Amino acid sequence: MLYDIHSDKWREECGIFGIFARQENVALSTYWGLYALQHRGQESAGIAVTDGNVMDVQRGMGLVNEVFRQGLPELPSHIAIGHVRYSTTGSSLLRNTQPMLVNFSGGQLSLAHNGNLTNAHEIRAELEQKGCVFQTSIDSEVIVNIIARSSRPTIEEKVIDSLQDVEGAYSLVIMTEQKLIGVRDPHGFRPLCLGRLGDGWVLASETCALDTVGAEFVRDIEPGEMVIIDDSGVVSRRFAETDRRAGCVFEYIYFARPDSVIDGQSVYQARFNMGRTLARESKFKADIVISVPDSGTTAALGYSHESGIPFAEGLMKNRYIGRTFIQPDQKKRDMGVRIKLNAVTSVVKGKSVIMVDDSIVRGTTSGKIVRMLKDAGATAVHMCVSSPPIGFPCYYGIDTSARKELIAASKQVEEIRQFIGADSLHYLSLKGLHASIDHIHEKTLCNACFNCDYPAHTPGEGDCSNNKFLFEPSKE
Amino acid sequence: MLYDIHSDKWREECGIFGIFARQENVALSTYWGLYALQHRGQESAGIAVTDGNVMDVQRGMGLVNEVFRQGLPELPSHIAIGHVRYSTTGSSLLRNTQPMLVNFSGGQLSLAHNGNLTNAHEIRAELEQKGCVFQTSIDSEVIVNIIARSSRPTIEEKVIDSLQDVEGAYSLVIMTEQKLIGVRDPHGFRPLCLGRLGDGWVLASETCALDTVGAEFVRDIEPGEMVIIDDSGVVSRRFAETDRRAGCVFEYIYFARPDSVIDGQSVYQARFNMGRTLARESKFKADIVISVPDSGTTAALGYSHESGIPFAEGLMKNRYIGRTFIQPDQKKRDMGVRIKLNAVTSVVKGKSVIMVDDSIVRGTTSGKIVRMLKDAGATAVHMCVSSPPIGFPCYYGIDTSARKELIAASKQVEEIRQFIGADSLHYLSLKGLHASIDHIHEKTLCNACFNCDYPAHTPGEGDCSNNKFLFEPSKE
Amino acid sequence: MLYDIHSDKWREECGIFGIFARQENVALSTYWGLYALQHRGQESAGIAVTDGNVMDVQRGMGLVNEVFRQGLPELPSHIAIGHVRYSTTGSSLLRNTQPMLVNFSGGQLSLAHNGNLTNAHEIRAELEQKGCVFQTSIDSEVIVNIIARSSRPTIEEKVIDSLQDVEGAYSLVIMTEQKLIGVRDPHGFRPLCLGRLGDGWVLASETCALDTVGAEFVRDIEPGEMVIIDDSGVVSRRFAETDRRAGCVFEYIYFARPDSVIDGQSVYQARFNMGRTLARESKFKADIVISVPDSGTTAALGYSHESGIPFAEGLMKNRYIGRTFIQPDQKKRDMGVRIKLNAVTSVVKGKSVIMVDDSIVRGTTSGKIVRMLKDAGATAVHMCVSSPPIGFPCYYGIDTSARKELIAASKQVEEIRQFIGADSLHYLSLKGLHASIDHIHEKTLCNACFNCDYPAHTPGEGDCSNNKFLFEPSKE
Amino acid sequence: MLYDIHSDKWREECGIFGIFARQENVALSTYWGLYALQHRGQESAGIAVTDGNVMDVQRGMGLVNEVFRQGLPELPSHIAIGHVRYSTTGSSLLRNTQPMLVNFSGGQLSLAHNGNLTNAHEIRAELEQKGCVFQTSIDSEVIVNIIARSSRPTIEEKVIDSLQDVEGAYSLVIMTEQKLIGVRDPHGFRPLCLGRLGDGWVLASETCALDTVGAEFVRDIEPGEMVIIDDSGVVSRRFAETDRRAGCVFEYIYFARPDSVIDGQSVYQARFNMGRTLARESKFKADIVISVPDSGTTAALGYSHESGIPFAEGLMKNRYIGRTFIQPDQKKRDMGVRIKLNAVTSVVKGKSVIMVDDSIVRGTTSGKIVRMLKDAGATAVHMCVSSPPIGFPCYYGIDTSARKELIAASKQVEEIRQFIGADSLHYLSLKGLHASIDHIHEKTLCNACFNCDYPAHTPGEGDCSNNKFLFEPSKE
Repeated sequence: MLYDIHSDKWREECGIFGIFARQENVALSTYWGLYALQHRGQESAGIAVTDGNVMDVQRGMGLVNEVFRQGLPELPSHIAIGHVRYSTTGSSLLRNTQPMLVNFSGGQLSLAHNGNLTNAHEIRAELEQKGCVFQTSIDSEVIVNIIARSSRPTIEEKVIDSLQDVEGAYSLVIMTEQKLIGVRDPHGFRPLCLGRLGDGWVLASETCALDTVGAEFVRDIEPGEMVIIDDSGVVSRRFAETDRRAGCVFEYIYFARPDSVIDGQSVYQARFNMGRTLARESKFKADIVISVPDSGTTAALGYSHESGIPFAEGLMKNRYIGRTFIQPDQKKRDMGVRIKLNAVTSVVKGKSVIMVDDSIVRGTTSGKIVRMLKDAGATAVHMCVSSPPIGFPCYYGIDTSARKELIAASKQVEEIRQFIGADSLHYLSLKGLHASIDHIHEKTLCNACFNCDYPAHTPGEGDCSNNKFLFEPSKE
Repeated sequence: MLYDIHSDKWREECGIFGIFARQENVALSTYWGLYALQHRGQESAGIAVTDGNVMDVQRGMGLVNEVFRQGLPELPSHIAIGHVRYSTTGSSLLRNTQPMLVNFSGGQLSLAHNGNLTNAHEIRAELEQKGCVFQTSIDSEVIVNIIARSSRPTIEEKVIDSLQDVEGAYSLVIMTEQKLIGVRDPHGFRPLCLGRLGDGWVLASETCALDTVGAEFVRDIEPGEMVIIDDSGVVSRRFAETDRRAGCVFEYIYFARPDSVIDGQSVYQARFNMGRTLARESKFKADIVISVPDSGTTAALGYSHESGIPFAEGLMKNRYIGRTFIQPDQKKRDMGVRIKLNAVTSVVKGKSVIMVDDSIVRGTTSGKIVRMLKDAGATAVHMCVSSPPIGFPCYYGIDTSARKELIAASKQVEEIRQFIGADSLHYLSLKGLHASIDHIHEKTLCNACFNCDYPAHTPGEGDCSNNKFLFEPSKE
Repeated sequence: MLYDIHSDKWREECGIFGIFARQENVALSTYWGLYALQHRGQESAGIAVTDGNVMDVQRGMGLVNEVFRQGLPELPSHIAIGHVRYSTTGSSLLRNTQPMLVNFSGGQLSLAHNGNLTNAHEIRAELEQKGCVFQTSIDSEVIVNIIARSSRPTIEEKVIDSLQDVEGAYSLVIMTEQKLIGVRDPHGFRPLCLGRLGDGWVLASETCALDTVGAEFVRDIEPGEMVIIDDSGVVSRRFAETDRRAGCVFEYIYFARPDSVIDGQSVYQARFNMGRTLARESKFKADIVISVPDSGTTAALGYSHESGIPFAEGLMKNRYIGRTFIQPDQKKRDMGVRIKLNAVTSVVKGKSVIMVDDSIVRGTTSGKIVRMLKDAGATAVHMCVSSPPIGFPCYYGIDTSARKELIAASKQVEEIRQFIGADSLHYLSLKGLHASIDHIHEKTLCNACFNCDYPAHTPGEGDCSNNKFLFEPSKE
Repeated sequence: MLYDIHSDKWREECGIFGIFARQENVALSTYWGLYALQHRGQESAGIAVTDGNVMDVQRGMGLVNEVFRQGLPELPSHIAIGHVRYSTTGSSLLRNTQPMLVNFSGGQLSLAHNGNLTNAHEIRAELEQKGCVFQTSIDSEVIVNIIARSSRPTIEEKVIDSLQDVEGAYSLVIMTEQKLIGVRDPHGFRPLCLGRLGDGWVLASETCALDTVGAEFVRDIEPGEMVIIDDSGVVSRRFAETDRRAGCVFEYIYFARPDSVIDGQSVYQARFNMGRTLARESKFKADIVISVPDSGTTAALGYSHESGIPFAEGLMKNRYIGRTFIQPDQKKRDMGVRIKLNAVTSVVKGKSVIMVDDSIVRGTTSGKIVRMLKDAGATAVHMCVSSPPIGFPCYYGIDTSARKELIAASKQVEEIRQFIGADSLHYLSLKGLHASIDHIHEKTLCNACFNCDYPAHTPGEGDCSNNKFLFEPSKE
């Protein structure tokens, strides 16, 4: 049984990549593109390729370098799409890996999906009524089935037709024998961008993948936009109007790599600003600012910059940490977190410390880190979180804990502070968060996990009443 | 690259197994059932199970003991089906492994198939026109799609409905959350039998699998019959009339295990009789009768019995032979066959030898064995083949070489004799073959590979004219 | 945990192979040589090679084709030695694999050993007193240490020097950067033969390995002989006089492949003769003679030949049987044996049967087979064993059960018959055994496991008194 | 073929760990201890355990979590030692993994070694002359052989005796059936420390391993000290006088984890100070200070602190980077470094940048990073290196490039600056380095790689003449 050491964070579900380029080894470029997107999914990976006639796909469980240990698809190709995936243990099966590759009346089709359809269950039931069978539990299979059933003449039309039926979050890369297609849902929940690589084109979840393969950023795909790429270039088509843009705010807080730029906003800059805002909001006094590495570091630097309190590396992360098949001894106090993190005594001993992390999900890890710092001699630990309390689950492509596992769904801030044993605790206000993401208007972001304002259909709970934290963050 | 040492034989494509038993570990029984059917397919294996609510499936490439090296499906279950498969390299892919497991409007369905649908291509095209997508290249996917599209109310009706559309060879085991279903096509090309295990029931391609799991043979499933097994017992339904039974004659010649009984005919007895008939037909004189082990041995014993010429083990087989990733040195004369077989000099030296084998496909291996015997001192090698010349490909579930690779499709018996370097060569006549299978009427067997008399639709060549051997065997 | 289905036989401990040939791919030839010797050891395999300057070795657990799945040693070489090994689970460790490869004052040395040194423990203790360290528990490490400590100038002298100290059974292949050396102990317990391959030379445990690689048999290495092979050809040196040749009689009964010839005696012929002698001794009447495949078959044919009772295949063996990680359901009666063997009902039903097997160790498997035959309808089962009762353990290279596990060490023949449920039971007499091995004088064989007459030093029990079977076989 | 993405750094050769504790799962503690020391060796790992009677060892190639994927040694034990290892490809073989486990006259002994014996070759030759054989190419085998040959009565005496012969660098953990022994060479080249875990004791290369297993730091083992741990506690013995302490200065610069404390000096604090000193020495002016992550970060923070120039994350590292079997496309400019690092455009665009790295070996990677920053818009890149130029190879346990690969061995600083394309380049002076390591006197450090002042015997080149950089650093 595999024990995942990173256990108290929300999980991005997927990263996608596509390339159309006659001068490139497209399978290899996709490999490195997925390598750059590995943080978006570590459970499985896959690459599909075509030479214009035949398609081939290779998929497997594990990290990108594990899945392709024996080599890449060998077909000499000029179009490829790829996918990395994280998912909960239950559905983490070989048969759920992507890209999906099917034969249909129009030939072959391969598709990779980042996001979550909120009406997948209904569509699936409907399609089953019409005689469809499903071999996986992934949304991609739903989408390819609707595409295949469309009576429209061209693949572009079929895709557009199919998108009328689906709701929720979807960034897609689709490959036919002739074309590479990119699609972003009308709300723009999940990112997708376009790059230029020599004479060819690249689609990727994040710009860091463009940088890694040496492609130049061209632009983000617009919500409700479809781009069709073939030898004649890139054609853009709008398949839906957007009355409510809703880019996921958590991409800026935690998911995306800081070197990516999403919808015009540098992730690094957003996090740095969150730290600065946190400093202005919290006004904590201390000897040093430290971060919970690596995701809290940029905000911690912002906090240090704004407050003038020096930044130091008070916690050191084991760089080789990863998956392990040996379970830590759970009888040992804090064993789990000590495997991953260690306090730097010479930094924290005798010091009051402001500790910056990006988010708190269940709170158990935070509590262990606070204790570790105090054991190492910190005189006080003031915890700053660069996001508001998470009170509501996400239905748009993040693998969230059920709401009852969210500490902020059942505890007040002061209760949380006591639970984690910090001397102070401050969450970034929603207003402060929005101020930090300074290139994007707050109304075009999805903040539902903080304020229960779901911009699109939700399949489940969706009940915002009786939530003690709903309005609290905005008090600040 | 894997080098298969057994290279000059036709290949059975599949073996299937199913079990419904509340007192058994059904996954384990299926494992051992597939173990017993391993000779019917060595490229992939799979087991699907259900506890009445949930289904799980585990599939992989390799032998049964390799695929389940890490364990069996863990779901505590009372129904299971299993599959072993051989296939040509091209389509030997992970995604083509069986059993197939799907969700459809009626719940979950798992299916394993032995045989070959001759109109799969047409149905597939039709279904694609109706919006179906296909993720594999196996017939099972075609069948589950037709089942799922049936408007009939019960699963039995749906299956029956679907079978109206398909042609060719199919023995099926189908599992729903509640039932185990066995189906045999109206011609009865491929075998399927029913056994009793305690309070439960077993379906298997061959009786040897019943023996292995400790089940008692009940009866063969009839061509055109469907059996539905659940807690209330076994119900039989006839879904089609048969005007032409056509059990595969090659099961008796080579495919099935000699300890199996198919449609009332002991395979062992049939082979023994073939040897006796061969002796009467060929009237060869020699010092000893030997076999090409292991498949030729039973017929050789029959030959010895009839002729009074003593049987001896003139060729010894390496018991550990199997797949290897190291290629034999092809520059070396006969390296390939020497890895597998070795002449027993003390047996053959100075002797004239009658060598019995079950069939000749390309003839290259036979030539090498003849040379090996002569190198070991045999004074003469008279080759006897316990089947008529194979002149026509099979479309009903055997992985046959293309017709141009069949030596008997382009060469007369005398030419073949010269090619393999034997002193004499005799093929069993078709009449003699039928006489040997004494419990089954020749009109209820499929002999198409010998006489081009295809009992059902064929997708391909199907042209019997201009074949020099077509009528020859019956001359004898 | 691996479950070995072949569980009630004595085990040969090793097979060895060596080659010196400038025109051959020696690593590849060694691979195929080991393939042919696979029956002598299935737990680990290894190949060492040299190009005259550098040595390389590759070793691993598993069958030959598993160990070298990723390829053979790549060094372009002209000398190679190889080893296959069986051993009890306890010591079946990666670090005990052979060939051993060491650096010593004379350069590099690689060595592979078949047999068992009876004073290894004493030498090991002595060497440890002199400061030696041991990293494995295999005898090869003892031998290389004595060789390395020899003060003699040449490697041949060092080897001869070292052999003065060791007692017991040893056939060795030794490789230096320049030479290939073969050694057989003064008693000649384990076989070793020499072959010619083009301009080069081959050493192998059995002639079947020569046949497989295409080498011509030259002669057996004599007990007490060392052969030194290099570019100038083969030089023979006698390093010890033999007052008592003692070739292992069990090689003829069970271990060796029937197509091998050992010390001038065809293994096949010996087994066939054993069957004939058994027929004359037992005088059983029955409808058919069957064998426990595969090892009992040749003797069964001899029995049939002598008695005139027809031979038939009453038991069929699963050809794909091997190692499995799934344990058979032990609650099921006879599950273990049914996985491996199945009765052919059409052969045995209503018949009285003479069943020939090569040996009985614990007797449990024999009992299950007898029951299986009766369940299939055999009216009587007369068991014939082509060896005398095994009453004493082997100290010369066979992995024997402790004496208390030997059924014949504690039970009379009649008791054993009752234990296995046979209608009659006859063991081949020692005299009959010797008569069957007609090319070798009985005084030059080791029969210690039957008569406690150990031809060389024994480390252990060695007490022949109070053994009820000691004289019994000679009564007959 | 495995491609290592981290390619332009010196490599620590090993990490070691030992534990004696009756209340702990010592195999599990060793596992996590090795996990914490993984940065000291990623090529192989091993754990040996004993229960007081029997010893067992498990070793393999790969990361700790890969080697023990199937589980830890199962023997219930109270003593264990472990080892992680990096080594050059050539000798990176399974048989060179540690800990070594041997039988000798005193029983069993297991040993793991960090360091490099400079007279191993001579001792090995001497021992071979005395009849020793060597199965590996690791120094541990040399040491166990000398220990085993010692005539002294106790294991402690034998170890002390053996250490009179060896020269060079060695930190050792040794395990007998009864005792755990720790040894550090008289120069103290490589670190070794002692910790307390409940009633038991722990030895480890670095304190970070103590922290991870929950042990409390007690003290460093002294150069020339041996500690013997058994049920009666810890006994210290001095086996050699030290006239020249020589702790490896590179542990502070790059090898050790920043959260470790070695010989009283916090590694973090040393690196922070190096950054401060660099700032004082270089006096560069720029908009921001950035680091080459992760190893350059602490020094960069020190630089920022001293200079007042803000620190920012200008380069982002792929956290999932590791080993890959797919080779980057080498035709692509900078592909290799882009896989690992990416510039954060929003941070560096339009800015002049001070980039801090810990060392320069060949200089190729530094050049690519400088170009990456300029491509991202940096107006100037001033490179600061927190160590002096490396002009001489290490013979004491670091896998160094040959001297001709060291850019500083053949190029002046200005030439190097041009080679890497930086606007300025400053190396920390040796004096500045020593000032930064403020808790240790410079005379007790080994700086040979910078100034050719080898504190102990060297086997090789050792020629300090004619080296242009020899005196340069001290100019500053």
